[in-house]
Amino acid sequence: MTYRASYRDRRVMITGGLGFIGSTLAHQLVDLGARVLIVDSLIPEYGGNLFNIDGIEERVRVNVADVRQQSTMNYLVRGQDVIFNLAGQVSHIDSMEDPSTDLEINCRAQLSILEACRRYNPSVKVVFAGTRQVYGRPDSLPVTEQHLVKPTDVNGINKAAGEYYHLVYNDVFGVRACSLRLTNVYGPRHLVKHNRQGFIGWFIRLALEDAEIQIYGDGRQLRDFVFVDDAADAFLRAGASDASNGQVFNVGGMEPISHRDLVELLIEVAGSGRYRFVEWPPEKRVIDIGDFYTDSSLIERTLGWRPVTPLRKGLALTLEYYRAHLPHYVPTASTQVGAL
Amino acid sequence: MTYRASYRDRRVMITGGLGFIGSTLAHQLVDLGARVLIVDSLIPEYGGNLFNIDGIEERVRVNVADVRQQSTMNYLVRGQDVIFNLAGQVSHIDSMEDPSTDLEINCRAQLSILEACRRYNPSVKVVFAGTRQVYGRPDSLPVTEQHLVKPTDVNGINKAAGEYYHLVYNDVFGVRACSLRLTNVYGPRHLVKHNRQGFIGWFIRLALEDAEIQIYGDGRQLRDFVFVDDAADAFLRAGASDASNGQVFNVGGMEPISHRDLVELLIEVAGSGRYRFVEWPPEKRVIDIGDFYTDSSLIERTLGWRPVTPLRKGLALTLEYYRAHLPHYVPTASTQVGAL
Repeated sequence: MTYRASYRDRRVMITGGLGFIGSTLAHQLVDLGARVLIVDSLIPEYGGNLFNIDGIEERVRVNVADVRQQSTMNYLVRGQDVIFNLAGQVSHIDSMEDPSTDLEINCRAQLSILEACRRYNPSVKVVFAGTRQVYGRPDSLPVTEQHLVKPTDVNGINKAAGEYYHLVYNDVFGVRACSLRLTNVYGPRHLVKHNRQGFIGWFIRLALEDAEIQIYGDGRQLRDFVFVDDAADAFLRAGASDASNGQVFNVGGMEPISHRDLVELLIEVAGSGRYRFVEWPPEKRVIDIGDFYTDSSLIERTLGWRPVTPLRKGLALTLEYYRAHLPHYVPTASTQVGAL
Repeated sequence: MTYRASYRDRRVMITGGLGFIGSTLAHQLVDLGARVLIVDSLIPEYGGNLFNIDGIEERVRVNVADVRQQSTMNYLVRGQDVIFNLAGQVSHIDSMEDPSTDLEINCRAQLSILEACRRYNPSVKVVFAGTRQVYGRPDSLPVTEQHLVKPTDVNGINKAAGEYYHLVYNDVFGVRACSLRLTNVYGPRHLVKHNRQGFIGWFIRLALEDAEIQIYGDGRQLRDFVFVDDAADAFLRAGASDASNGQVFNVGGMEPISHRDLVELLIEVAGSGRYRFVEWPPEKRVIDIGDFYTDSSLIERTLGWRPVTPLRKGLALTLEYYRAHLPHYVPTASTQVGAL
């Protein structure tokens, strides 16, 4: 039985399941015949969006809840076979303004989920959405899982702690768990209503609106990008295999590309948009990490995963999606004018 | 001017200042002419003990407060030149039973202190008491600061997060900070009323009481031990030098020694006590880290620190201290019987 077929009739819970990657996973899992429970707080500023499950809303169960709530988690985890644990605060900038909220969501909530599993469902498998942000400014490239964890912001620290909790609960309490350290993920259903959760969704929106994209500095810094369907596939593989237990895996893109080349490709594929180089805003410069790209060979060796969607194709699919659905991802017309 | 002379008339705050290492620092700082503010929560189960400042109680200011309390921290940090930040929950076992309290003290409280500094005293220097526990089971020995952070318990994770916050506040907000990753510290003023905060203080108490020391397994696992006066000296050096800013340093002992050899040396120096090998308790086995000893050459190169107290001498000084003062460190006679 393939890892995909193994999800038929399985009970799968997705925290942050109305968000970008979580909802993509939900779509794939519904297609595979899984019984999907989506848990999402729908906090307005975050990425949860009911439109993200458009078309499958009758085939999933949605439970609005905050993962920080221990008693709720104690109930919801029961009977689940797999938990894809994607709920989180993802803004680096917000974490520096309000470190306490970031701590609550990225540390305490993870302990809530894991404690619930330890006490009420110790045989579940948990796959955590980690981040390449835990590495900070890389000492060497490409970055492997042997690179030191040296976060440059509070969000990176708390995401690292959340990940470590999963590994300790795996090793000490036998709650099988692993973490995927995701690089920049892009694709349909990404939050594009503001620019505080990663730049690529924002750039895609600006290109679509034929607006100006601002590139900080000379735009030469390198990143790797992974298409959201590929990222979701990494979760499915990790959730179906015990070879992942207790491990962390980089989940990176095919080839690094500079910000400038990315923007030029995006504008070419979109047929709209333009760009300009601007000075780095100081509050972003200070937590920027320079060039970064990932070595994903460990997950390829262990779980057979590798990215399969070329950037040009992924951008085209993303643009196509937002051309059809952009009004569901931006504020109403009146506030939209103000935001631009 | 030497680093020690630089503390004359300096305002120095010590969080956890009634504890083992904090109070040792207070004694040294009073001798150096510093103006010492001790902040301690005096939580009964923890290491704070008013007897630890016996002899200097008129020359320090003691403020009973919990470092988790943001408004209190906002007030207390003002005007301080240096903060030695030692408040923490240190029990590995407790962190696995009650991870949420460990999170509050070792993560949230550190953010409280750093936020207070950022907003009300950004020119202060903060020296954080880190721990070798962040490394987990070592991949190679001796362990340098380049070793991966892979904690084996919740306490190690939260201490790692607390340390990372200091580094990020140094790099991003200019609140000068560094961390000392302490190995097993021993000496006078250590908590010995129970055995949940490290084994060496407990062994010393048992030897003094001519009781049986239980060694888990075959007693061959290696550790390095640092005498508390030496550890305090590392704090003084780090607090007086900007070369430490943004850095982490291992603070280790002179030479590794096995548990068995340590216990035999202790019994020999004490002239009392005996030992027996016992099976590992499962809840300790699962978070044990095997052999561990530290490479402290980075702090020697950067700050000129190295351990100077041989283990035999340190044990003799410790035994002498507890012979004189043990009743201040153990429960009353009636509960003591129950505890033994």
